[in-house]
Amino acid sequence: MPPTPLRVGILGCGVVGTGLLRLLVDRERAIAEAAGGPIRVTRIAVRDLGKRREADPGKAAVGIDPMAIVESDDVDLVIELMGGVDPAYPAVLRALERGLPVITANKHLISLHGPELEAAAARSGASLRHEASVGGVIPVLQSLDQGLRTERFTLLVGILNGTTNFILSTMEREGRDFSEALDAARSLGFAEADPSLDLSGADTAQKLTLLARKAFRTDVAHGSIATEGIVGMELEDLRQADRFGYVVKLLGIGQRTPEGLDLRVHPAFIPKRYLLAAVRDEFNGVYLRGEASGSMLLYGKGAGALPTAQAVLGDLIAVARERRMRGTGGSTKPGSPPSHEPEAKISIDDVRTKYYVRLLVDDQPGVLAQIAQRLGGSLVSVAQMFQEPGVRGEASITLLTHEARDRDVRDAVAAIAALPTVRRAPRAIRIFDR
Amino acid sequence: MPPTPLRVGILGCGVVGTGLLRLLVDRERAIAEAAGGPIRVTRIAVRDLGKRREADPGKAAVGIDPMAIVESDDVDLVIELMGGVDPAYPAVLRALERGLPVITANKHLISLHGPELEAAAARSGASLRHEASVGGVIPVLQSLDQGLRTERFTLLVGILNGTTNFILSTMEREGRDFSEALDAARSLGFAEADPSLDLSGADTAQKLTLLARKAFRTDVAHGSIATEGIVGMELEDLRQADRFGYVVKLLGIGQRTPEGLDLRVHPAFIPKRYLLAAVRDEFNGVYLRGEASGSMLLYGKGAGALPTAQAVLGDLIAVARERRMRGTGGSTKPGSPPSHEPEAKISIDDVRTKYYVRLLVDDQPGVLAQIAQRLGGSLVSVAQMFQEPGVRGEASITLLTHEARDRDVRDAVAAIAALPTVRRAPRAIRIFDR
Repeated sequence: MPPTPLRVGILGCGVVGTGLLRLLVDRERAIAEAAGGPIRVTRIAVRDLGKRREADPGKAAVGIDPMAIVESDDVDLVIELMGGVDPAYPAVLRALERGLPVITANKHLISLHGPELEAAAARSGASLRHEASVGGVIPVLQSLDQGLRTERFTLLVGILNGTTNFILSTMEREGRDFSEALDAARSLGFAEADPSLDLSGADTAQKLTLLARKAFRTDVAHGSIATEGIVGMELEDLRQADRFGYVVKLLGIGQRTPEGLDLRVHPAFIPKRYLLAAVRDEFNGVYLRGEASGSMLLYGKGAGALPTAQAVLGDLIAVARERRMRGTGGSTKPGSPPSHEPEAKISIDDVRTKYYVRLLVDDQPGVLAQIAQRLGGSLVSVAQMFQEPGVRGEASITLLTHEARDRDVRDAVAAIAALPTVRRAPRAIRIFDR
Repeated sequence: MPPTPLRVGILGCGVVGTGLLRLLVDRERAIAEAAGGPIRVTRIAVRDLGKRREADPGKAAVGIDPMAIVESDDVDLVIELMGGVDPAYPAVLRALERGLPVITANKHLISLHGPELEAAAARSGASLRHEASVGGVIPVLQSLDQGLRTERFTLLVGILNGTTNFILSTMEREGRDFSEALDAARSLGFAEADPSLDLSGADTAQKLTLLARKAFRTDVAHGSIATEGIVGMELEDLRQADRFGYVVKLLGIGQRTPEGLDLRVHPAFIPKRYLLAAVRDEFNGVYLRGEASGSMLLYGKGAGALPTAQAVLGDLIAVARERRMRGTGGSTKPGSPPSHEPEAKISIDDVRTKYYVRLLVDDQPGVLAQIAQRLGGSLVSVAQMFQEPGVRGEASITLLTHEARDRDVRDAVAAIAALPTVRRAPRAIRIFDR
């Protein structure tokens, strides 16, 4: 008796859905072999029935109602590729409640509702997988869930957003300013029409939320991570970074400290010799440091139709194998959701970090003393300082601090910004060299 | 009813076994949670009962006969950490025949007997896992087996041996010669007393065998890979590499070409901008290029007690979960072994590659013409050439070739070596910049 096909319903058929349908056709035999039987897409929900698509839906019924798919009786598994929270959340929740395994690429959904969805999955015994939601094709969630599951991680540093990494790489390599690099990213398809979630760091923060939950096995609430983006990044900052032996990257950082878990997203100077410094353009990289395993890096494409579809396909094979192993409809016995212990978090105010600060000041006696006084008054000590003459009676001051309390540095910089001899808002970027 | 403990028999208790016992104790709770129940080591086979050990065997029975463990009735799963082929092969084979899942870190065993062991595993439905056998803690086999299983890879390039990578990194960074760097590796514990398997490239070839079977889903016979090691590597070669924008690494390469699968192990010049160029010291890195996923790199510690133990632990959790999912003694229904299609292999003779060649010649008229003639006669064309005066009437000639048939370059170099004006054996190292 040939194995029964696994019947798949796909919610959303944009670029990733189209890529997935293509892979399912192109690799039909290999996929059936890996899955232990054929995969058949029986239903697809799209937003606009009239839109022409490249992908061939085959014999799948195409409709516009995702709820109709998760309620239907000819679907064994649901793949959610709509993005956003509504209607993705009710649809995914309902599928899990019905005991249907769900695969999603939706970082926003999981960041916001992951714990409830995990709980619903545990109640019905269905599995919820979302490898494509972080780091695209990089098998990082699978590794954290499986081979590295029992590792105790002390540090996680990710370059998790391809758009901002492309912009920073383009500025660095081509000497272009921020807006030119953003235009280049747009014209190459690496930035969306509205890139604000990328530029603000919010996208990175969502992905860090998901990674930190897995790596540190603790609760991390959506929106709880201190986040700064790269808007306003100046080419001169990248040049100064280069001069001091660093490159600028937008990082998502998770770090165990004696005071609690330090989670934050911000641009940072990182040493050029770090592997993460070589993660360029639209690529993503996740650096992990574990007590037993030491340093690790996982690198690959964080976005794009086929890399994302490949990650979804990996989840699909995993669910199909689980289902075959159990010999039933794809659900385990009901269980409890993975236990995530609450853990103390340290506020970014109290994190100790080094800073790069750049100032434009009046080139006159006493200015340096005023600045040094503000720093010293906030217990910030200077590791290196350069003063260079500018035009029109200006001087440029660039300094690197020793490690200090983050809030103290920001207070000192605010006090310096208020000096009448300081001509514009200081630039201040953290240095990450742990 | 509390879940029944999973009873583990460990064959071999050297540094990795000791590390594993330590992790099992230190992380008992997290491991039990991940595994769905407690893990209990019931039996350990050691070589020498009298030897003092750091690890506490707990309540495990310690003996010297691995066969007694795989035949015993109080073991649900076998972990083989003896290394070598005898008695590992008969013990692992017997365990699989009895339906006991086996986890091993033994690359030599799997390279030599992997297909027979996989077949035995498939017959009894037991699983055979060996994540620790390649790339240490790097979750590369798991990724190739699961998330990336259906990907079509076109290229795989690995730095798979920590000893040789440490030696090359030390030569490069500290300007030491080969034997000094080898001594440094020995004194830091990165090289064994007899490092010949590492230095000859044989260790890398075994690991490439395992990786290529998974990544390309094809048969690769043990010992079938053309292999060159790094013995005789000269500091001057690394200096020349630097001058041309390269670094020297010992690579395991698997490449799909129109003529067949190209598998080989040799030192190579790789461009400094490659991520693999930043894989230094005792670290390993595996670069993969897939049709859907594009470029990926997985990086981490390839050896060492705790990283290897962590990889073994990952396999252990996976087996425990499989067993729990099936609700039985850890075996699936008998199945067929994974199908590996035979695929044409291309001989290294016919591979097209670029070369770096360094010659010491008599500094006299006509020598360059003789050399150029030998190269041209073998259809090897030169991309760059430098001639520099040496001492005692010698000249040093360094050249980089365009891509040519590998055998043709070696023939040309042999012809050049036979010239009476050539003072010592030429140095010839391939360039890999695909």
